[in-house]
This record gives sequence, structure tokens and C-alpha cells, in this order.
Amino acid sequence: MSRTKRFTSEMELIEWLKKNASSRSRGLLLGIGDDAALLKPQADRNWVITADLTVEHIHFCHALHPADAVGHRALARSLSDVAAMGGIPRYAMVSLVLTRRTERAWIESFHKGMRRLADRFGVSIVGGDTAFGSTEVMVDLTVLGEVQRGKALLRSGARPGDQILVAGELGVSALGLHLLRSGRRTAEEADRMAVKSHLFPEPQCVLGQYLAERRLASSAIDVSDGLSTDLYRLATASRAGAFVWEDSIPLPSRRHQPGVRRAFLLSLALNGGEDYKLLFTVPASKVRLVPARFQGLSIYRIGEIRDSRAGIKLMLHGKLHALNPEGYDHLRRQGRKQAGDSQRLPFKSEV
Amino acid sequence: MSRTKRFTSEMELIEWLKKNASSRSRGLLLGIGDDAALLKPQADRNWVITADLTVEHIHFCHALHPADAVGHRALARSLSDVAAMGGIPRYAMVSLVLTRRTERAWIESFHKGMRRLADRFGVSIVGGDTAFGSTEVMVDLTVLGEVQRGKALLRSGARPGDQILVAGELGVSALGLHLLRSGRRTAEEADRMAVKSHLFPEPQCVLGQYLAERRLASSAIDVSDGLSTDLYRLATASRAGAFVWEDSIPLPSRRHQPGVRRAFLLSLALNGGEDYKLLFTVPASKVRLVPARFQGLSIYRIGEIRDSRAGIKLMLHGKLHALNPEGYDHLRRQGRKQAGDSQRLPFKSEV
Repeated sequence: MSRTKRFTSEMELIEWLKKNASSRSRGLLLGIGDDAALLKPQADRNWVITADLTVEHIHFCHALHPADAVGHRALARSLSDVAAMGGIPRYAMVSLVLTRRTERAWIESFHKGMRRLADRFGVSIVGGDTAFGSTEVMVDLTVLGEVQRGKALLRSGARPGDQILVAGELGVSALGLHLLRSGRRTAEEADRMAVKSHLFPEPQCVLGQYLAERRLASSAIDVSDGLSTDLYRLATASRAGAFVWEDSIPLPSRRHQPGVRRAFLLSLALNGGEDYKLLFTVPASKVRLVPARFQGLSIYRIGEIRDSRAGIKLMLHGKLHALNPEGYDHLRRQGRKQAGDSQRLPFKSEV
Repeated sequence: MSRTKRFTSEMELIEWLKKNASSRSRGLLLGIGDDAALLKPQADRNWVITADLTVEHIHFCHALHPADAVGHRALARSLSDVAAMGGIPRYAMVSLVLTRRTERAWIESFHKGMRRLADRFGVSIVGGDTAFGSTEVMVDLTVLGEVQRGKALLRSGARPGDQILVAGELGVSALGLHLLRSGRRTAEEADRMAVKSHLFPEPQCVLGQYLAERRLASSAIDVSDGLSTDLYRLATASRAGAFVWEDSIPLPSRRHQPGVRRAFLLSLALNGGEDYKLLFTVPASKVRLVPARFQGLSIYRIGEIRDSRAGIKLMLHGKLHALNPEGYDHLRRQGRKQAGDSQRLPFKSEV
């Protein structure tokens, strides 16, 4: 097959996808190429399923995000949801809407970024759909995973007295995006790590499975839209309140960034999003069983679940402040934009 | 909750979706609202999974397709894939990309059309994603279904000598689109049926299950891109050839359409697509076991599987002609458009 600049027929593209898509997997009876993929579930497992959209100009733009990062990020979002359920990701469906100008090299690089992450997590790409002719590139990534019966981590299990923990620093991805946009990024290690966290976030599937299998966590969610929003979601689902100590929230390292104010980093952690770190609650009696570090990341205790009447509060300079969900909201953004929202991030996430 | 013209926050939209999404289902442990849906598979079943994109200006346009038809069609495409596997559709994931101008009434009507079809087929809507701010409306519909172990209908099972059958007339949906576009539609029953077939196609899930459970069909595919393309896919997957008798292909009724030439109807059947009728093969010894009618539709015998060396041929006026896959191809369309392709349909389908 000669390499043309663009795929010349859908059949050619599908043949290419078929060849490059699937690592073999035990339960996969049939992958890409029939009307549907055919899967054999394991007897003692339940399934988790999640879908995430990645849309040009909303979640990424070509100027800042290379194609392999777009592929990586699209899959990472769904893997992170599976992680937050304590599941083992198994299969992915990739639906891809492309413009007439999208080049073969972009598709191949997108696919490479996605495939690299899929392979690392043992995920087989088993199907999807493709359409050409839109104005914007769009991806919908559906991931199907397994979880041991009765052990899925839900948002709704937090109880008053449970401790609130988070694995790794928050606001790092938003800082990376800020550096990318401002063009101010240096060769410093901290800068490079922040940009890498934004372009190639690492889903915490192994930690999710660890917490689920040992029944350590009473609830869990992944921080995709900022701590303020995702803590609100977890507390609301659990019909509980929560207190968070501002000085316990792990922020990006400032060692090499003297020009960046702490208040800015805090706002990124609270409202920036796309960190894909697990936020989870642990009954007080089990906190000592949670490792201080896991796969190279520190696990931080940042607060405590309270009764719902206590509300959701941030303890700042010895005073309690209401902590409202201020993370990205596709619809609210629309209203705010007219009022000027230069602080807000242009590319954001999840429902 | 007051009814505003648009949803004012994502949380409001998700709450609305949660309330309106899900019929209860036995294996559904957790639907919309957590990081992922949680499902319990049945012991003796395999799963089929399929995803289909529906994109504004490619698969539909607001001028011709009301919102409830867009919702119906988006789901029908995936249900039809499950039908072609002989599966029972169970769960749907709906990812929806909307523009900033999309009104609440459109979303509600879209959802109503989708939900009505889902309810009729016992499908629970268990999750998905939403994004606002694109230029075009886009839907990705993933359906998960069950099939008895070892009984899935594949494209690859056809053997020389097997008879080729199709359930219902072909080209009806394309005729309906033609009538919608030309504005020539009359109050005649045949016209109304064609338009209805286009806007609200009926997936043949019950027939698929019937053929799979009784092991009647050796292979199956749904006709989504026209007979020429889908027969090519089936024959190629089976490494076989096929002969089709032109005068056996069931065409839309011409009784009330004296102005429409037969050659035009034949081109719609061969290359029009979106019929979502099952095309399947049956060993000669079992053909008598296939009912002549099923759920009100006639089942037609239109040809025979041959050895691959025989190629894929159409028997027309006593002569064999090569039958090339001429149905919709997103990528080829691009090339042909410049050469003038007024015969081609503007809104089409599936990979």
C-alpha cells in the first residue's frame, strides 16, 4: 500500500485501523471488522462502562496539542473514570470525526499516542466509527472494564468522619496548559513535568484497583474538573458535607517558579481540572492502612467528610469559607464569557 | 425547576438526563451519575458492542430531520448492528456534542425520539458525555448487547451454495430522503411510508435473534450503505463470491409513483443505504425453514454465494455484470464531488 497524504477510501482507513488496533486479549472473541465486537465476560466480574468526548477548540487545539497527545488524553480521560470505579480497563471503542483536511500523518500520530497508552494498560481497541467532513475534529472514547463483584468504588459511599485523600499534586495539568499558552515555559524540570502532565496525564488505575480490592476506600472520584467541583460531586452523591484544609492541598512545586503566586496555584488546584488524580475517602480506622506513597506519588490527607448540614467548606487562615463548585462547566462558561473570564481555561473536561 | 430556553448549567442538564434516561433493567447495578455505569453480565452470554456516529451536515440536517428523528436514527443505527450479530440490545451510552445555540427544546425532542425507541427495545440509557460549543451537532451512540454463547451471527460464515436473503425492500430510506429533499412528496401512502422509513427506520433485532437462536443464518450484515457495499463486505469477510439476480431485488413500491423510473429505484437499492434491513445467508438445506414473512415484512431470496473466484456479480437482462461497492464512502465522496456527483446522497452512514 503506497503512503498517500490522506487515506483515499474508508475501506483503506478501516483496514489500517484493523491492522494497528488491537492487542490480543483473552476475552476478545472478535474485534474490528464485523457489525460489532464480540466479548466473553469473566464469571465473577461486573462491568464498568464510561464514555468521554474530546472536541477540538473545547478540549484541545492543534496549536498546543500534538496529535499523539490528543490520542493519549482522549483515552486517559476514560481510563481515569475506570480507575475511579476501582476497575481494570479492558476494551476501548474509538469514534473519530475528522475534517476533510485531516492528514493521514495526524491520524497515525493520534492513533500512536492512544495505542501506546492502551498497550501499557492492557486495553484492546475493539471498534468504533469514523466520519469525515466536519468542521472540527472530535473523538468519543468508550472504555469497558471489569471489577470484582461488590467491590466497585462509588461516589456515594462517603460517611461523616471519613478522611479525604488525594494521590498526587493538584493543578499541575492546568499549570502546564498555562505555561504552554503563555509561551513562558523554561527548560526547568518542574516546567517540563507540568507540561507533560497536561499533554500526557497518567490515569491511576492500579491505585483504584488497590483501594477497591482491599476495601480501603468508602468512595472515590477522579479529579477531572478541579477539586471544588469533584469534591462537590462526591459529597453530594454521598449526601454529606466536607471540610478541606487549604494548607493541606498539594500544589505544584514552586521551587523553580518564583514568579508564580501561591494563590494562582491554589485556584488551579481548586478549579483547573484535568489532573486525573484519584480523590477518595477512607474511614478513620483504615487511614493507617493507606500507603504514604503509591507508584511514586505521595498520597495526601486534605480533609474530612462531615454531616450534610455542615456544607462543603475550605479552612483558610483559620476561617471556614464556602467551597463552591467553580470548575469548568460547558454551559455556564457561555454566560460568564460575556462578563469576561480570562482566568478560565479554554480547554476542559468532563461531565 | 423553571423551564428556560437553554439549560443553564451542565449539572442541570445531567440531572435532567438522569431523570429521563433510564428504564430499570435487571443487570443494571448503577446508571448515570457516577464515574461509570456498573453492569452485571449473565453467565451464559457473550457481549456485543458497537458505536455509531451521527454528525450534522453528514448524516442529517436540521432542515430535513426533526430532532426526534435524529435521536431515533442515531440509536437505530447501533441497534441494527446488534441485530446483525443476532444480539439482544441492553444498554446504550449517548455522547452528545452541541453548539452554543442548541435549544433545550431540541435536546428534549432528540432525547424523546431516542428514548421512545430505546424503551420499545428494552434498552437502558446508562451513561455518556456532553460537550457544548462546537460548530456542528454530533452524536456517538454505543450499544452493548447480549448474545448466547457460540450463536453470534458473523459476516464471515457464508459458504458457496448458501442462499442470499434480505428482509424487506431496499432503497426505501433513500427514496424517502429523495422525496424530502425534492419537496415532491404527496399524501400518498407509499410516499409517507418512504419518508417514515428514512426518518424512523426500524432495526430488525427480533429477526436477528430468531436467525441466531435457530442457527438458520450462516452469516449476516445490516444494509446500511447500500446492497452493493454491504454484500461486498459480507462476501469479502467470508472470502467468497456472490451472484445477485437483479429482478429479485425488492424495490420500493412504484404503484403510486409512476414518475419514478425503475433504474433510479434500483440505484437507490444498490447504493442508497440507511435501509437497516438484514442481509443474510442461509445454507440451501435450511432455506425452507426461513419464514416467508416476519413481523409484517416479506423475506426475499435475491442470490447465491459462490466461490471467491466467481467475483461479485449482478445478473441483469441475462448477463453477468461486476457489482462494485458503490455505496457511501466518506473519503471517496470527497474526490468524486469535484467530478460532480449529483446522484449521490448527502446524508449517509456507517463505517
